[in-house]
Amino acid sequence: MNRPAAGISTREALIGQLRALLGERVSTSTAVLEQHGRGESWHPTQAPDAVCYVRDNDEVSAIVKLCAAGRTPVIAFGTGTSLEGQVQAVNGGICIDMGQMNQILEVNAEDMDCRVQAGVTRRGLNQYLRDTGLFFAVDPGADTSIGGMTATRASGTNAVRYGTMRENVLGLTVVTANGEIIRTGTRARKSAAGYDLTRLFVGSEGTLGVITEICLRLHGQSEAVSAAIVNFPDVRAAAEATIQTIQMGIPMARIELLDSAYIKAINAYSKTDYPELDTLFLEFHGTRAGVAEQVQMFDEISREFDASGFQWAEREEDRNRLWRARHDAYYAGLAVHPGSRGYVTDVCVPISRLADCITETQADIAASGLFAPIVGHVGDGNFHSTIFFDPDDAETLAQARELDKRMVRRAQQMGGTCTGEHGIGIGKLKHMRNEHGDGAVEVMQTIKAALDPLNIMNPGKVVDC
Amino acid sequence: MNRPAAGISTREALIGQLRALLGERVSTSTAVLEQHGRGESWHPTQAPDAVCYVRDNDEVSAIVKLCAAGRTPVIAFGTGTSLEGQVQAVNGGICIDMGQMNQILEVNAEDMDCRVQAGVTRRGLNQYLRDTGLFFAVDPGADTSIGGMTATRASGTNAVRYGTMRENVLGLTVVTANGEIIRTGTRARKSAAGYDLTRLFVGSEGTLGVITEICLRLHGQSEAVSAAIVNFPDVRAAAEATIQTIQMGIPMARIELLDSAYIKAINAYSKTDYPELDTLFLEFHGTRAGVAEQVQMFDEISREFDASGFQWAEREEDRNRLWRARHDAYYAGLAVHPGSRGYVTDVCVPISRLADCITETQADIAASGLFAPIVGHVGDGNFHSTIFFDPDDAETLAQARELDKRMVRRAQQMGGTCTGEHGIGIGKLKHMRNEHGDGAVEVMQTIKAALDPLNIMNPGKVVDC
Repeated sequence: MNRPAAGISTREALIGQLRALLGERVSTSTAVLEQHGRGESWHPTQAPDAVCYVRDNDEVSAIVKLCAAGRTPVIAFGTGTSLEGQVQAVNGGICIDMGQMNQILEVNAEDMDCRVQAGVTRRGLNQYLRDTGLFFAVDPGADTSIGGMTATRASGTNAVRYGTMRENVLGLTVVTANGEIIRTGTRARKSAAGYDLTRLFVGSEGTLGVITEICLRLHGQSEAVSAAIVNFPDVRAAAEATIQTIQMGIPMARIELLDSAYIKAINAYSKTDYPELDTLFLEFHGTRAGVAEQVQMFDEISREFDASGFQWAEREEDRNRLWRARHDAYYAGLAVHPGSRGYVTDVCVPISRLADCITETQADIAASGLFAPIVGHVGDGNFHSTIFFDPDDAETLAQARELDKRMVRRAQQMGGTCTGEHGIGIGKLKHMRNEHGDGAVEVMQTIKAALDPLNIMNPGKVVDC
Repeated sequence: MNRPAAGISTREALIGQLRALLGERVSTSTAVLEQHGRGESWHPTQAPDAVCYVRDNDEVSAIVKLCAAGRTPVIAFGTGTSLEGQVQAVNGGICIDMGQMNQILEVNAEDMDCRVQAGVTRRGLNQYLRDTGLFFAVDPGADTSIGGMTATRASGTNAVRYGTMRENVLGLTVVTANGEIIRTGTRARKSAAGYDLTRLFVGSEGTLGVITEICLRLHGQSEAVSAAIVNFPDVRAAAEATIQTIQMGIPMARIELLDSAYIKAINAYSKTDYPELDTLFLEFHGTRAGVAEQVQMFDEISREFDASGFQWAEREEDRNRLWRARHDAYYAGLAVHPGSRGYVTDVCVPISRLADCITETQADIAASGLFAPIVGHVGDGNFHSTIFFDPDDAETLAQARELDKRMVRRAQQMGGTCTGEHGIGIGKLKHMRNEHGDGAVEVMQTIKAALDPLNIMNPGKVVDC
């Protein structure tokens, strides 16, 4: 693939043009550049040459046109929460910070959809929707931008019921590599009209264009919501109970595994007193009668797998406390070894292989001697391990990378994928060919080369393998 | 775009090569060619130059390579039930009949998925699955091939609950335009690993490659199933009841509208005695308690809209009779004017606009004087009209085309799409730019040109606008 030239003088001229366009909304301060050259992962920072704070589609278009003329990389930036090096400026270039494009453009309550600018965050959107009886369902934990979630095909705790970004995006506005502003999709719930460009851009991580507006599907808030935690004797039992729950068709809203190592860390960090066992965090949505029936069905299944210690949270504040503890797992892990960093990895397997995959991974972690607790959106067959390591200890990082590689290969051999939801970025490029085969990877590269012939859109990511 | 050369002598040489490859499984008989040059629609037959009956991926690959060398169009053929001219050989070429690729390759009951060859039909698959407790949910009415359904992004009566082919295809095997055999997707329920090639090929109508194998999502058969029909004073009332049902989140398995004109035709054709009013055909799936609750909620809503004449079908044979009548609607319409043909069109709008769109369309039909009853998968905002016309009467056909055009424009103006499920083919090419804008159409054309640079894969369809 073409490598954009990175001549310094050209970059300086380009930055001058950007300042003429955006005035003070162009920054080259070191702190700003550094902050925009990393996500929340272990990947080393690679700073862009400038950061542009945009306010509308036309500004994004103008920036992309200038960058195309200067053969300069363009990297869109949301909230900086990516986990596989998606925003690292591997060849330098211009970062487009979408944070000021934070308008909710329309909410069509009757159609249960809305249109937002890419910089709107999921919590901001749900705050706005609070009185409509609707909510945006995709919940990856962090307060991520909708644009970033779309670009990485994010999912999270309740994808098991409501789907991932793949299912929840109805249409997009995208600035393509030549600076053109296009729309994809319609507000109709289904369409057979031509290629599914919406799904092509969802998960493309900014390598095919900059996503500037997103039309989202919303869901009705349930009449009844009930949350619970329940303990299991081991991870296999928890995974087997999950498998049977999914196979029975119980429409779980959330079914999350935290292994005993994570529960211990959470108790220490969040001052909770959960039994320090392998645990499922659950949520049930439906009518009152429906939730009662789901709870009863789940209860019967879980007892078969020696579950114990059910704790229920019916009130909203109790449920929030429970999910806050779940979402704080990462920070709780960091607190176990102050100063450590987290090497986060995620895989996803067919549900029948979940218990095997987690159990074998746990054994692998134990043999490695690393501190690497497991958490999973297990209803989807998706789980993560965070390998905590000392950033000054190159050897542990090397061990973490090897553990990650084995974990990915294990999942792929079981018919799964190297990433359920964190994306490829630069971190998982090396696993693409093993997963898709050379033929499919070459089709992806052909599409990339056709839609971004100068290779300026977030180069070095997803298809550079 | 490139037009493949269509020199006769080259075609004859190519057919000789195909016979060397497939022996008697190449046909050039006029009857076979004619049968493979049309779907079930009003579009005139355009026959291919030869039909090849294939048995495996390697044969498809070999044919595509020969056709690429000869710059000859390749058109995949399933059951010949397409409705927008998808299989018409507009520049001649080689038809690949997938009917003998009819093996069910694997069923993973625990993961609720299966892998089939493209020629397997949906009824054949469901017959095979009968004892597993699972079923394949997408039901467009006709006993279509899974390959054809994938290629056109089909849906049908219960997409409102279980999704369309977009949601029900997990992965594909595809023979690309250079004859390479690629795989897309994994058996994991979700993945963030690279471009979503699966969704790109779903709905591409054979213009990017030949789909040879499909990994499908299956669903569990429900403990309880209940079907019903209910009458409304007019189409608006039926549509408003549907809108409210969807907004309330009742998980309807099917919610189908047939207008009074269709009910009259069905009564005459199927010897039924349904009240000749605008009618919803319904199906509820769930646990026993869940179905009872859904029925009660629907009942309350429908009474607000002056529904009457509930007729229930609990037993499987009664439900089958009810749905048979629904699926026979097209033939019932043909029988009203023996010798007529049906000009079938479908649109899909945001659910809030459904009542307006159907009511305005009905008024338009009435003003036109045409016999054009309406049927709809209204839970998705999707409805069809079949305009019955005398094939020898060019003037009525011209009127039908104008009516269709107005119907499409009305749906597009309401934020909808020119086709909810029948696809583009050649019939709806003219509506692509109005729906997607020039920019998005050009992106589609760029993808087509990149993946099929010789323009041999089902040329003249989807993006030739």
